[in-house]
Amino acid sequence: MTNNDNAPFSFRLIATDGMARRGEIRTPHGTVRTPAFMPVGTQATVKAMYPDQVRELGSDVVLGNTYHLMLRPTAERVARLGGLHKFMNWPHTILTDSGGFQVMSLAQLRKLSEKGVTFQSHVDGQKIEMTPERSIEIQQLLGSDIQMQLDECIALPAPREEAERAMRLSLRWAERSRVQFEAMGGPGRGQALYGIVQGGTDPELRLESAGMLSQMPFEGYSVGGLAVGEPQEVMLKTLEITTPAMPADKPRYLMGVGTPEDILESVARGIDQFDCVLPTRAGRHGLAYTRYGKVNLKNARHADDPRPLDETSPCEASNRYSRAYLHHLVKAGEGLAAMLLTWNNLAYYQQLMQGIRDAIEAQTFEEFRARTRADWAKGDIPPFASR
Amino acid sequence: MTNNDNAPFSFRLIATDGMARRGEIRTPHGTVRTPAFMPVGTQATVKAMYPDQVRELGSDVVLGNTYHLMLRPTAERVARLGGLHKFMNWPHTILTDSGGFQVMSLAQLRKLSEKGVTFQSHVDGQKIEMTPERSIEIQQLLGSDIQMQLDECIALPAPREEAERAMRLSLRWAERSRVQFEAMGGPGRGQALYGIVQGGTDPELRLESAGMLSQMPFEGYSVGGLAVGEPQEVMLKTLEITTPAMPADKPRYLMGVGTPEDILESVARGIDQFDCVLPTRAGRHGLAYTRYGKVNLKNARHADDPRPLDETSPCEASNRYSRAYLHHLVKAGEGLAAMLLTWNNLAYYQQLMQGIRDAIEAQTFEEFRARTRADWAKGDIPPFASR
Ligand SMILES: [Zn+2]
Ligand SMILES: [Zn+2]
Repeated sequence: MTNNDNAPFSFRLIATDGMARRGEIRTPHGTVRTPAFMPVGTQATVKAMYPDQVRELGSDVVLGNTYHLMLRPTAERVARLGGLHKFMNWPHTILTDSGGFQVMSLAQLRKLSEKGVTFQSHVDGQKIEMTPERSIEIQQLLGSDIQMQLDECIALPAPREEAERAMRLSLRWAERSRVQFEAMGGPGRGQALYGIVQGGTDPELRLESAGMLSQMPFEGYSVGGLAVGEPQEVMLKTLEITTPAMPADKPRYLMGVGTPEDILESVARGIDQFDCVLPTRAGRHGLAYTRYGKVNLKNARHADDPRPLDETSPCEASNRYSRAYLHHLVKAGEGLAAMLLTWNNLAYYQQLMQGIRDAIEAQTFEEFRARTRADWAKGDIPPFASR
Repeated sequence: MTNNDNAPFSFRLIATDGMARRGEIRTPHGTVRTPAFMPVGTQATVKAMYPDQVRELGSDVVLGNTYHLMLRPTAERVARLGGLHKFMNWPHTILTDSGGFQVMSLAQLRKLSEKGVTFQSHVDGQKIEMTPERSIEIQQLLGSDIQMQLDECIALPAPREEAERAMRLSLRWAERSRVQFEAMGGPGRGQALYGIVQGGTDPELRLESAGMLSQMPFEGYSVGGLAVGEPQEVMLKTLEITTPAMPADKPRYLMGVGTPEDILESVARGIDQFDCVLPTRAGRHGLAYTRYGKVNLKNARHADDPRPLDETSPCEASNRYSRAYLHHLVKAGEGLAAMLLTWNNLAYYQQLMQGIRDAIEAQTFEEFRARTRADWAKGDIPPFASR
């Protein structure tokens, strides 16, 4: 199932254009072209998509959620079945989160201590303890190529003391995560562990977190604690301060982001990796991402429109099914609506990433950014003028 | 979109083996190999399947539901958009039912008269009148290749007088349907209209219905009013009486049937066409049809089973995903469960039909029937013996 089991994790920069970076990550399960968008496969499936489709759209890596998988089917079961790659029929690179974000946002009765966090499973009510060590153990059982340290992610806005306390706790957890990762032989298997920069929206805290983490031997670095409700400009401002303090020779991953515009603007600020549920979730709610911006298929204006979502797209879901048909499927609650719209959305996201990568290599990222933003601003094609 | 717009509907028998028939229907949208299983595309989509997949499994024809489509998106809208083939991206043969069965089983406040049936839409509460003429008009707007007369389908068991009344009403509606079909130019477009044999489980009524309909110039004949709750042996007994009274040179369609066993046994009694929601509906409820019989993926025995549903199947859904993974997807309520199981189920149904067709041509239908029944009787592979 693996492309090259012994190739260690590596990252190289191919080109830069301003702060934007074009790079290449190698993992035991393949090459990841960066900037990369990583579709989210929460429960070992990218919702409403066959794995081959996800791959064919140009995805080099998908994300698995440690929290969901540890509860069901459990990491131990996945390990017995040969690991997550085999389990979900995805022989390419897999990144797992630490589970921390979902514990904080989904679990009941959670209690945080220096040691870790205890919580109640949303699946069967069982009481569970999550520590930095246990998170690494789970990610090792899943066998993911790129693993995350456990961190504490707080809601924004937050008082400085709260952001500082969480940031310092996350640093201590970073150290414990690294120790566990090495003890379990992660580096020998060519896997990567990323440290996560925290600190809310406070520049000093972000710089301190980035600086401290940079001294630890992580294979890559994440920016955590953003896209948790703050305005986009606050997120981008925080990135502008943070990314220059992160090692230039390591990949930078902005967790949980975001809209196409968030991604474009974050690439402009030096980010290499993204994940977000938006394209898949929107696809299940009748929303399509296109070069014309976001299109709501529930809207009655599409009911008699024989035109596809985007006739210029190479994706079948975008160029072959009429808006009238998609509108009908959405209104009728048909599963094919989610299948086609998710397909379209992931296709658009991956087209955007390919455009970004090509532009950085060609040193035309600014033109690409301006043109892409102008297309979005133009909005959808005018309503269909029926007979 | 059409393969040959001018080819008129035709049917030819290629081989017979006992009562079993191997034939070929030609329509303006292609060739249908019989015996044929027709996947159900209720709301202009075979649930959880891309149309190309349905085709690739060997489906020559799908069924569209007049009742659902007339309510949403409406037949008039489908016509404005170029017809049902184009609307649902299915350029092959389409059969539509008359809408009668769903009016009787799904609609509220229905009132039956000689003229037709009035009912309230389950979508928006609107009061609607359905007559034999209106049913044909809708099917013409949809542009289906094979159309059905409006009939009255009663629940079984039923008193003889009730079955007789409904059978005679259906005969009068058959005549009115035929007049309307010809007035609207159906024959000139190469389309077919099937008359529907009714009569409950009463041999005399079935023979009378079949005899009367045979004198009308229908392109094919359906057996209606079965698979509505009666035991399988009652259905098969009724078929044994009915099919010999149906024209041998016209296709015979058993409506709404059925399980793989129902189909095998009905082919043995001279039926050429089938439709049923079972393979698609079961796929959304964690059930897989295989050559081992029906497999319930919800069952905990699959949780640690690394084996696929059927390693000998050529279908990717059947041979590539572990039972453990399918079990996980079903338990987690993931859309991919329905996508993979529906795919597996339709693949199995179409493999069964191909096996039936090959066996009839080779004059080995009885051996095929016995072998297939023996495989089902053996049941699923033994539970996986884990370490
Ligand atoms: Zn997100
Ligand atoms: Zn059925």
